[in-house]
Amino acid sequence: MKKGRLIVISGPSGVGKGTVVKALMERDPQVRLSVSATTRQMRPNEIDGVHYYFLSCGEFETMIAEDRFLEHAEYVGNFYGTPEEPVNRMLEAGHDVILEIEVQGGLQVMQRRSDAISVFIAAPSFEILGNRLRGRGDTDEEKVLKRLQQARVEYRVAPRYQYIVVNDRLEDAVSDIQTVLRAEALKSEHQQHLLKEAD
Amino acid sequence: MKKGRLIVISGPSGVGKGTVVKALMERDPQVRLSVSATTRQMRPNEIDGVHYYFLSCGEFETMIAEDRFLEHAEYVGNFYGTPEEPVNRMLEAGHDVILEIEVQGGLQVMQRRSDAISVFIAAPSFEILGNRLRGRGDTDEEKVLKRLQQARVEYRVAPRYQYIVVNDRLEDAVSDIQTVLRAEALKSEHQQHLLKEAD
Repeated sequence: MKKGRLIVISGPSGVGKGTVVKALMERDPQVRLSVSATTRQMRPNEIDGVHYYFLSCGEFETMIAEDRFLEHAEYVGNFYGTPEEPVNRMLEAGHDVILEIEVQGGLQVMQRRSDAISVFIAAPSFEILGNRLRGRGDTDEEKVLKRLQQARVEYRVAPRYQYIVVNDRLEDAVSDIQTVLRAEALKSEHQQHLLKEAD
Repeated sequence: MKKGRLIVISGPSGVGKGTVVKALMERDPQVRLSVSATTRQMRPNEIDGVHYYFLSCGEFETMIAEDRFLEHAEYVGNFYGTPEEPVNRMLEAGHDVILEIEVQGGLQVMQRRSDAISVFIAAPSFEILGNRLRGRGDTDEEKVLKRLQQARVEYRVAPRYQYIVVNDRLEDAVSDIQTVLRAEALKSEHQQHLLKEAD
């Protein structure tokens, strides 16, 4: 059984990461999405193990101590992280696994797993990014400007991702990511089985 | 004007490199094929500057001395090589340029031009490669076996190419190379212009 690939997808708030990832998974049903762990309160509509693994602070800290996260971070008083074990199980079962995470987490994963394929999703322009943030109900202009400022910080890290895909038309962005995944499979290190006969 | 990419395509005799390259150029008319130089005699149906640049031994040796070849080699008493200048002109004009060359030349080009995209074309199997060599009129079995032996040597070098594409169905092989070229354009080092706005 061929192992799956670990795919890190990041990009600024408002760029449409979630929509791109959802469309990608609809087009390719063998792809899986990693589930994060968090110490924050479960919300009424959320299911443990589906939206998040909900952990106590003690459980989370034990997992950190045991080095069982691909990446983790603290955000407004709560811990968030990607448990490595369920990801590895899906990879071993032959599924490509997507981590949809913010850039600091993305960099942690890339350092830990040099085999990860990393894609940064960029907006066609900052103007469009601002409009998207406003359009989705963030009418608070101060919040929008803060998110755009955060996007600038993330763009500075983008060159450390292997690929950059623009989310202009959703269909194109999804096709671009599929192109990347197909090309990665054609890399000679993944095609060694073709050469065996010559030995 | 965006510069074109240098694309090295190699693969054993009989694998169908020429057919793949021709089909690729038909699908993408902006792609150009590099013309080699040689000191061998011009054949009646050949045109200087189209099939080859036909050079005297003195001219060829001067160009070697002036370091004006991307790669060059001697083969059964004649020199063959890829002049760098015409390739650079096409690249500057925005064309992707294909070098369809044997593996020793391919390695020379990769060493000289680290930006080159390299693709090794493999056969679905050695049995099929043998049949293809026989099918195209090489009924001399000794010659076929010699070519298969040469193919084994070339396969050993294949891992030094970035990508390996199997030529089973022609259409698939061409699509695979197009996938590689599109994915290469999405690499973050080629997408820096998208991030400028954030500076």
